[in-house]
Amino acid sequence: MNASELGLPMTVPAEGLPARVRIHEVGARDGLQNEKQTVPTAVKAEFVRRLAGTGLTTIEATSFVHPKWVPQLADAEDLFPAVSDLPVDLPVLVPNERGLDRALALGARRVAVFASATESFAKANLNRTVDEALAMFEPVVARAKGQGVHVRGYLSMCFGDPWEGAVPVPQVVRVCRALLDMGCDELSLGDTIGVATPGHVTALIGALTQAGVPVSALGVHFHDTYGQALSNTLAALQQGVATVDASAGGLGGCPYAKSATGNLATEDLVWMLRGLGIDTGVDLGRLVATSVWMAAHLGRPSPSRTVRALSHQES
Amino acid sequence: MNASELGLPMTVPAEGLPARVRIHEVGARDGLQNEKQTVPTAVKAEFVRRLAGTGLTTIEATSFVHPKWVPQLADAEDLFPAVSDLPVDLPVLVPNERGLDRALALGARRVAVFASATESFAKANLNRTVDEALAMFEPVVARAKGQGVHVRGYLSMCFGDPWEGAVPVPQVVRVCRALLDMGCDELSLGDTIGVATPGHVTALIGALTQAGVPVSALGVHFHDTYGQALSNTLAALQQGVATVDASAGGLGGCPYAKSATGNLATEDLVWMLRGLGIDTGVDLGRLVATSVWMAAHLGRPSPSRTVRALSHQES
Repeated sequence: MNASELGLPMTVPAEGLPARVRIHEVGARDGLQNEKQTVPTAVKAEFVRRLAGTGLTTIEATSFVHPKWVPQLADAEDLFPAVSDLPVDLPVLVPNERGLDRALALGARRVAVFASATESFAKANLNRTVDEALAMFEPVVARAKGQGVHVRGYLSMCFGDPWEGAVPVPQVVRVCRALLDMGCDELSLGDTIGVATPGHVTALIGALTQAGVPVSALGVHFHDTYGQALSNTLAALQQGVATVDASAGGLGGCPYAKSATGNLATEDLVWMLRGLGIDTGVDLGRLVATSVWMAAHLGRPSPSRTVRALSHQES
Repeated sequence: MNASELGLPMTVPAEGLPARVRIHEVGARDGLQNEKQTVPTAVKAEFVRRLAGTGLTTIEATSFVHPKWVPQLADAEDLFPAVSDLPVDLPVLVPNERGLDRALALGARRVAVFASATESFAKANLNRTVDEALAMFEPVVARAKGQGVHVRGYLSMCFGDPWEGAVPVPQVVRVCRALLDMGCDELSLGDTIGVATPGHVTALIGALTQAGVPVSALGVHFHDTYGQALSNTLAALQQGVATVDASAGGLGGCPYAKSATGNLATEDLVWMLRGLGIDTGVDLGRLVATSVWMAAHLGRPSPSRTVRALSHQES
């Protein structure tokens, strides 16, 4: 028997944590866009279906960014209709108005824009200043909201930046406020290079709350580059955050190379939340099976420690 | 420049944590004893020297268990004298009186015994009941204390057991009390199979404190089998624990196999503590260099995410 079949982890709630956490599953988008190989559309669709079958309720499906930038997701027009019947939320990334048009034409009801907290990353990723990027998102958000579409604002480099080093908290708060003021329904605070530590997480969420941002509008998006994703998540939960981004099987971070960006693995998150008695609605066994299935398609083992421990997957 | 050279992680202390943490480095003992290959004595000695050069102050050097059980550490008699001039604490594992004799003959001033919180593991590991094992340790601890030698009591399977599943907190508290009552100076609470979650950690430490155990006598020893080691460590720090076991480079857990037991990597711990502004005295760059050097000897990359992120080590 594996540990899960033995009834582990033991459930012992901790004080002051949310009763329920919504996992925003990013494996099909953030995960697959960072894999070297392009996965066939039918496999992606089956992946999203299997994820929905695990009890996950928010599954980011794809991105309507120009195929030139993210060739791995160039099939968004084919993929989205193949999964849009699923009874789950299927947000999609839209970089600009053109992307929004494509998403709306297919009936998307949830979209996400992708902003930067630092000038260096805004320049590198969007070839714009932070404020120019915000100005570009304004009509996207306005038009989406005008059609009753839910908008998430991703904010990258909230803790550190590979060019600028540490990112001051007030700088992040300013961009968060701008995204909310233009109409974003929720934010995802991204530690894009994985350098955050728990005190920094607590400080940023505290500053946002002080600035009038309701904690219910905040999600966290941690990377495991330095192994910190789950302890940072715990710090965020202790501040009342109840939306956590994670990637099934840790997709998107290769475990065997220095360049690993390492999304937090959904299974490792579910293990912790299950132990804490926090409801996610996710069947861990099915999720592990889904990640093992996807790993077989990618031809390499999952970097998730929980997947490795609970499966018979060997490298 | 890597993130560390950029001044990352940003230092942001969190409330209610210890100002200083003592890292009990177990790589040379717990790490190497779980590696498949046996490392030459000279390499082990150089490893311990390099670890001491990073600022680590407690380096568990080896084990005086019978070579039949742990052939990887059969050279304890040669290794210990080769490092005993170092100005750091060098505890050694002693399974019984014979092991104690061997350690004392070489001038060891710190020893550790290895108890179990569960009957199944006591049987599997020591071929004794829990109480028979405790009885075996009693003269070991008494004789060590009689010579002014510091005694650590390891307690394995404090959270879950591969045969029994969840381990009740009162059962762990009873064995902890017994170890302290026989004279152990400190305890190391081991999550041998890595199944603990933060609420469980908080509950166990709370119960021990309630039972009169001073938190200063407690250390924690987490494994990363399910990716939980660092978040569990954070929970322990929040309870006031200021001694944390870790293994340089994550030695002892193979990253590529299901059977990975995965000691918490010292570098991942130091990254978090550095971000939290908690003093450890450890130079992270030197520690990473030491783990990269050791990984080269073992012929495989370190499983520590921080080592991988900060080094140019590729697999």
